[in-house]
Parts: sequence; C-alpha cells; structure tokens
Amino acid sequence: MLHLTLKEILNLEQRYRASLINSVLGFKSVNLVGTKSTKGNTNLAIFNSFFHLGANPPLIGFIMRPDTVDRNTLNNILETKEYTVNHITEDFYKKAHQTSAGYPSDVSEFNAVGLTEEYKNGSHAPFVKESNVQLSIELKDKVNIEINGTIMIIGEIKDIYIPENSIKEDGYLDLSALGTITNNGLDSYLNTSKIDRLSYAKTDEPLNSL
Amino acid sequence: MLHLTLKEILNLEQRYRASLINSVLGFKSVNLVGTKSTKGNTNLAIFNSFFHLGANPPLIGFIMRPDTVDRNTLNNILETKEYTVNHITEDFYKKAHQTSAGYPSDVSEFNAVGLTEEYKNGSHAPFVKESNVQLSIELKDKVNIEINGTIMIIGEIKDIYIPENSIKEDGYLDLSALGTITNNGLDSYLNTSKIDRLSYAKTDEPLNSL
Repeated sequence: MLHLTLKEILNLEQRYRASLINSVLGFKSVNLVGTKSTKGNTNLAIFNSFFHLGANPPLIGFIMRPDTVDRNTLNNILETKEYTVNHITEDFYKKAHQTSAGYPSDVSEFNAVGLTEEYKNGSHAPFVKESNVQLSIELKDKVNIEINGTIMIIGEIKDIYIPENSIKEDGYLDLSALGTITNNGLDSYLNTSKIDRLSYAKTDEPLNSL
Repeated sequence: MLHLTLKEILNLEQRYRASLINSVLGFKSVNLVGTKSTKGNTNLAIFNSFFHLGANPPLIGFIMRPDTVDRNTLNNILETKEYTVNHITEDFYKKAHQTSAGYPSDVSEFNAVGLTEEYKNGSHAPFVKESNVQLSIELKDKVNIEINGTIMIIGEIKDIYIPENSIKEDGYLDLSALGTITNNGLDSYLNTSKIDRLSYAKTDEPLNSL
C-alpha cells in the first residue's frame, strides 16, 4: 500500500490535497440547502457534510465555512432560523452542482441554475420542487469549531415530505429506490445498488438479511 | 407526497423513528474505528456519522453516544488520543456490521467477528488488515453537543494507507473502483456506480465531465 504521512499531506498542492482529503472518508450524503432572507432573497447551496445527531428529537448537523460562498446561506439561517434540506437525484445533479458557483449575493441560485422554489404549509424557506425527499429544519444551535474556524449548524427536523408508500413497515427508507444519489469527493455523483440489509446485531445470534 | 410533522415524528414507535430519521439525510460514509486501551485491550466499532471538517490541516469529525456500546471506543480514544478509521468493502460488511453487537468490554470485536489487527509504523491503535483504505487519526478536540448529550470527536489525519496508483493525478480517489461501500439507514450496505464527475462550477462557463 501507499503510505502518506501528515507531513507529506501538508506539502501537497492545495487543490490536490482538497480533492484527496474530501475523498478519504468515504461516500457522503449530498443535499441542497434552501434559505430565504427576511428581505425575500432566496439562496440554494449544495453541502456534503451532513450527519445524524439523534432521532428523538430528530436532530441533524452540517458544517459551514463562513469565509466562502456559504456566507449567504449562513446569514439567512441565522436571520430566519429556518432552512430546507433537499435530496438530489440523477435528473438534476448538474443543476445541483452548479449552485456551488460564486454567484453574486443578489442572484438566486434557483433562477441561475434552473431549479424551482416550492413553498408549503406556511414555510418561509424554499424547498426544491424537483427533489424527491424534502425536509424543513429549524435552527437549534450553532457551534464554532475553534480548531479551524468552521461552524456546525444543528437543526431539528420539523417536516418530512417523501413520496407516498416509500417508508417500509419498520421505518426504513430505501434511498436507492427513491433515486437519491451519493457523492465522492468534491465533484463526483453516484447511484447505488443494495448489497444487503442486515438484522440488528446480537452477540449470540447470526445476522439475517432483511 | 406524504407529509410527516415533528409532532407525528415524535409520536412514532422508537425503532421505527430511529430507522426513518437515520435514513432521511441520504447515504453515509461508514467506517470501522479501531482503538486500543493503555492496558492493551483492542476495540472495533462501526460508525456512520463521519464528516469532513477541513483539508489543511486534514481534520475529520464523527459523533458518539456516550451511553451506548460506543463507551469502550470513547474511553480508548480519550485515554490514548489515537484511533484508526478503516473503510469497509463488500468482502467483510457482515463482520463490520457484527461489531455493533453489545460485546462485554473484555472482548475484542476483532476476535469476536473475525477481523485482523494490523500495526505499522509504530501505531498504537490497530488498523483493520482487511480494509482497502486505512487512516490513523490523532484526537484534537472533543465537543459536547449540549442539545442531546452526544459528543463530537475531532481528529487530525496522521497517515493515509491506500492501494498503490489509486490516487488520480488531481488527488481524487475513485471509491467505487476501490470497493468502498456506502450505507443507508442503520443497517443497509450498498455498492455505487458513477453517474458523472463534474468540473469546478463557475458562473460563466458550462460544466464539463471530468
């Protein structure tokens, strides 16, 4: 195997290192975050740093970099305490990726890339109409990660919108069947195919396929 | 579409809710974390809450629940400041899943599930020999997430071990080609197939496939 030390990693060319380190943890969830300022300007941004924090209450986190194109999204979230998280499918992954371009703050990425704002049940933040799974989220906490100046945004799931009959009898969502895609590194999008679903692991029983 | 409100989510049966909320953010990176106590007891645990924090320096995070089977892994990390992160392939996903069973603290999951400890370049924490991509990590910070009592573990990548010739000329790692699998919910494992890799998005240029 090839061995790269920290010293060697730190000496890599910047974009090379960013690509490598963004790949090295494995596949990621990739979603579009929709926000709207109090003045009514909408914003749409792609993130791949989401993680599960807890199911009861339903809490999710993601990481933002305040010094980048995330700035509008961050400001809108802090201002309105509200955002949406929208899954990406193969039908519109190019439009989703294009939201990462550095548009001026008065340009809505919805218009710029050709995705459709959707509002329902009194939501202030826009959903992505083209998305198969949509979540509305309320900001609960903002944690400054001191070691590198990033920010962790913690939110509570207020609403889940999913296709009818897509939740299995035990609560499982088959994301492959729903068409949700995954992400490798900074710029690669992938479909998935199930190997197996396994029973709850116990010390004294063999695993079964579900 | 089906609409589930927070109130309805909170009223769901506990396991149903856990399965749903663990699926609803999309696919996740899933890895095995290897640790060893100062007394020499090894531990191996599966986690799917990893996220990228930064590339320079290379920092990664994941979420632990101190009141669960994570306890041994957490204690070892805090005690030794060292752990490994190991990708999972289709060859041993069942063994990886089986590490989540509630083994007594004097049992090494390496032995219990049949995976092989590997040590190299003076590492204290064990790698998983069967793994295609192995990282050694140094603990840098522990952040208590007050809202639900979880813990965010922040670490710096000290070493990367990957197959020879697997890094593309621009630093990209093709995880599908490497055999790394992804995860859906609490218990489902999947292969991936690339849809596309896209160029860096700019406001005034069309995207190209890389």
